[in-house]
Amino acid sequence: MTDKEHIQLAHGGGGELTAELVEGVILPALGGPQRPGGLTDGAIVPVGGVKFAFTTDGYVVRPLEFPGGDIGKLAVIGTVNDLAVMGARPLVMSLSLVIREGLEIALLGRLLKSAGRAAREAGVSIVTGDTKVVERDASDGLVVTTAGIGVVSDKAALGFHRVTAGDRIILSGPLGEHALAVMSQRRGLGFSSDLVSDCASLAPLTASLLESFGEDVHFMRDPTRGGLAAVLADLAEGTGRNVEVLEAAIPVNRAARAAAEMLGLDLLAAANEGKLIAVVAASAAERAVETLARHDMAAHASVIGTVGESSDNPLVELLTPIGGRRIVQRPYGEELPRIC
Amino acid sequence: MTDKEHIQLAHGGGGELTAELVEGVILPALGGPQRPGGLTDGAIVPVGGVKFAFTTDGYVVRPLEFPGGDIGKLAVIGTVNDLAVMGARPLVMSLSLVIREGLEIALLGRLLKSAGRAAREAGVSIVTGDTKVVERDASDGLVVTTAGIGVVSDKAALGFHRVTAGDRIILSGPLGEHALAVMSQRRGLGFSSDLVSDCASLAPLTASLLESFGEDVHFMRDPTRGGLAAVLADLAEGTGRNVEVLEAAIPVNRAARAAAEMLGLDLLAAANEGKLIAVVAASAAERAVETLARHDMAAHASVIGTVGESSDNPLVELLTPIGGRRIVQRPYGEELPRIC
Repeated sequence: MTDKEHIQLAHGGGGELTAELVEGVILPALGGPQRPGGLTDGAIVPVGGVKFAFTTDGYVVRPLEFPGGDIGKLAVIGTVNDLAVMGARPLVMSLSLVIREGLEIALLGRLLKSAGRAAREAGVSIVTGDTKVVERDASDGLVVTTAGIGVVSDKAALGFHRVTAGDRIILSGPLGEHALAVMSQRRGLGFSSDLVSDCASLAPLTASLLESFGEDVHFMRDPTRGGLAAVLADLAEGTGRNVEVLEAAIPVNRAARAAAEMLGLDLLAAANEGKLIAVVAASAAERAVETLARHDMAAHASVIGTVGESSDNPLVELLTPIGGRRIVQRPYGEELPRIC
Repeated sequence: MTDKEHIQLAHGGGGELTAELVEGVILPALGGPQRPGGLTDGAIVPVGGVKFAFTTDGYVVRPLEFPGGDIGKLAVIGTVNDLAVMGARPLVMSLSLVIREGLEIALLGRLLKSAGRAAREAGVSIVTGDTKVVERDASDGLVVTTAGIGVVSDKAALGFHRVTAGDRIILSGPLGEHALAVMSQRRGLGFSSDLVSDCASLAPLTASLLESFGEDVHFMRDPTRGGLAAVLADLAEGTGRNVEVLEAAIPVNRAARAAAEMLGLDLLAAANEGKLIAVVAASAAERAVETLARHDMAAHASVIGTVGESSDNPLVELLTPIGGRRIVQRPYGEELPRIC
């Protein structure tokens, strides 16, 4: 597509085109800070001696219900996880609804019940909200936007500036379960599977890591839209360092791999909603994996790569099992529309 | 319409049907607090000795640009005003976009520039955001959801419980300018006017009132969706007291009144985006009006009514210029879809 004047679906995919839109249009227009990652990340707001984390996300997943979750649970968990990877304990949340005329009220109730349950399980209170209704049309029934506030742990010292050569990259489990569970429900795709979204709070994982390893944890992120590939691209760009990942070390879910192959999708770029990427000091890496693996949801946690030296043109390289190397690009963004 | 099983446009109108949906479906499903006004209002969150105000709103106004504003400015000002009427100084804000495929990027830039300008003028920083894209369809191009955090003034002691018999109700200016400026831009309505939305930050007004009158200010609210009628209904319901309003005392914008008459709309139920309703102690009322009127945007501030005695069935009554009385009902919600 060569139309540069109008929004394309890929502008929302969390890849290269999203980054262009955010850095090139949204941030300059708002007149806000031009920091890498920009508005897509949460912010730390210090007030009266307390460091608050503040984040927001809009959810447009289609269909509204899928194996392992629904838009209500996803909207709560997504914001909980954004706070968790900032080293924060989630405190309160807002939940704003834009509903299509004609949505079944029983379905709305079910989705919100799921949101409420997810919030209670994550120990966060939904304290404010809003409800708007728009006309019936071709698209799906609901947009949910959440914002969350958390209190940053005293033990957290996170950021690209804390990442150094030799740091290890840990992934908490196999990739793509969320994206492929959602895709399996799309009309016309013609595949079925036993895949279940991994949608779950990462707060227990991040709290364990910070509790045990404190400043040895240098960076955390959850690989949602754009997947592992987008997070590694951010890591390389944000730190100015090369990144090397061992393909054989990445945990695999066989059903997700089979589905990805069938659909021609790259698991590295597929969205997850219950996986953690942590960059830790080399000396702490093996113990950090053991700490994570004590949680059922991270039983397959592994060191998957290493941070390298500074570079003018930092690259993410994947080492294949047969000794090959390939560059991992930031995904463009058009593979999986409306996956979260 | 008799379909009780599906969402109707009026569920989003801020009136009776919105209240039913929020109280009857949304809050019970979330398992949250069953307080009056529920999730539609902001929340006060005390952390480490500081009282924070937290609020969210989604914006679906159609068209995206209108005389006196646009969805970008509206999304910032709406959240600033929600914080202001809670007695809070706005601090930081999130801004989440759901964009239709095909939206002109130049228009998006213009809307966000307007949002950025409104934020700077209101002294609030947009610190976090999100961008999603959905497929092209019949509806308009953009949903903007903002959430905001403010710090509640030490001088604020606001709430239904603080309102007592004899308190005066102050309105900062004429009604309906926002709603009718937006309606004048709708296709097919066939009227034009010089009306301009009143979209503006109320923070200077609320700060002046709290600074000068502190605990004598008992309640504040901005009459957006559902207008003055919805706020007075909330006031009567929330306090359990009758409310009496003098029709002749309500400031009038002649163009807005003419447009409302032409469209068959009730100005009392029309949305405003730069008006304040304050309930103050009788002894402070005249001075409070003078304080407000020093601000250009509240030059026509007036005492419009009085809070009465407690009642099992509290009513809002309008006293007409010829001595009649009529009950003001909470609007049902279907008059003005997508006005904010």
